Amino acid sequence: MKLVIGDKFNSSWSMRPWILLKHFGIPFEETLIRLGQPDTKSKILEVSPSGKVPCLVTDAGDAVWESLAIAETIAEMHPWHAMWPREAAARARARSVSAEMHAGFADLRQNMPMEITTHAPGTGATPDVLANIARIEAIWAECLGKSGGPFLFGEFCIADAMFAPVVMRFNTYAPKLSATSLEYGKRITALPAVAAWIDGAREGAR
Amino acid sequence: MKLVIGDKFNSSWSMRPWILLKHFGIPFEETLIRLGQPDTKSKILEVSPSGKVPCLVTDAGDAVWESLAIAETIAEMHPWHAMWPREAAARARARSVSAEMHAGFADLRQNMPMEITTHAPGTGATPDVLANIARIEAIWAECLGKSGGPFLFGEFCIADAMFAPVVMRFNTYAPKLSATSLEYGKRITALPAVAAWIDGAREGAR
Ligand SMILES: N[C@@H](CCC(=O)N[C@@H](CS)C(=O)NCC(=O)O)C(=O)O
Ligand SMILES: N[C@@H](CCC(=O)N[C@@H](CS)C(=O)NCC(=O)O)C(=O)O
Repeated sequence: MKLVIGDKFNSSWSMRPWILLKHFGIPFEETLIRLGQPDTKSKILEVSPSGKVPCLVTDAGDAVWESLAIAETIAEMHPWHAMWPREAAARARARSVSAEMHAGFADLRQNMPMEITTHAPGTGATPDVLANIARIEAIWAECLGKSGGPFLFGEFCIADAMFAPVVMRFNTYAPKLSATSLEYGKRITALPAVAAWIDGAREGAR
Repeated sequence: MKLVIGDKFNSSWSMRPWILLKHFGIPFEETLIRLGQPDTKSKILEVSPSGKVPCLVTDAGDAVWESLAIAETIAEMHPWHAMWPREAAARARARSVSAEMHAGFADLRQNMPMEITTHAPGTGATPDVLANIARIEAIWAECLGKSGGPFLFGEFCIADAMFAPVVMRFNTYAPKLSATSLEYGKRITALPAVAAWIDGAREGAR
């Protein structure tokens, strides 16, 4: 199994399946394509039909793209790991918040781009971004409240992987957050899989 | 089971789970909230934590939101229906194109909004929209080529439901399309579940 990703510094979509595989100890080969180079698009298109990373290439040679579809596929391939919550109602909610992240929060993405090694507190906080952040904090508070933590649905699952890049953005731009969000962010940042990604971002930092 | 939707005329996200349930003959109660009214937001928030429709309310009273998460959840609840392709590689591809639709094609959405009863050929075709359309046509051609049709993965599945609103847009704005796309569009439009949605849009048309 091969995972094709972009730079760890700023490829927020790539981070999700990468930390998911790492966290659950699933072996995979990593291919990193540097973004923003003249040949980036052609290199990505050699593996990923959408022209975007991440892209998973299965042992059979099939391409699976889109972070959320990769996560669903990895979960299906490893049913012995609880990548989604085991309980049906929690799983449906985990899928809801993951899909909401997958499709939404455009203002946050645009104005607070993931740049892991950047420290820029106070930038990017437009009113639309603050509305995005308020909704994210509401999701986190509700999930953590219901599950009791330490992660959104108890143990770390796909929903946490989907939100991990948001935690990286919050680390960089330091918007005002509730204590619940700050603590959740610290727990995500301290996860070995996430720490390994951050180390990779430091090594490859521009 | 209750599905809360927006106007059939233009709620493209609501159309997806609605036609999925109808196509597979799954009974559900429909609640329609008129969009763009002063009380739209508060009405939606009574059921859907994201403040958006569609939202599925299960018999146990749990809210499931986001069209793609609703589709996954419905599929899981009815494993005797092949809502996703039965074969693993096809299923992974179906999830990839569905997630790509869920997160992408912002230019198409903005410039060719779904307005089922509108006839406006020639409008909206900016260069970015045309790039979106080219990618959609490539997805359709590849899926139909691999499966042999009549739908993207053979029989109608969630991936077709995800793209059905795009077919509605193409019916309205009539961009130049390949014969393959036009024929696929006709097959989608003629499906009883889709025809029933279109009838509803006509009845409620503004
Ligand atoms: N919705 C997609 C988004 C993927 C995406 O936008 N990836 C960016 C990098 S993070 C990309 O590949 N851009 C193409 C490029 O930079 O040429 C997913 O979930 O994987
Ligand atoms: N990604 C969401 C998008 C849902 C969405 O944007 N729904 C629109 C209507 S189609 C909505 O509820 N807008 C809120 C409003 O009009 O107040 C999904 O897949 O369900």
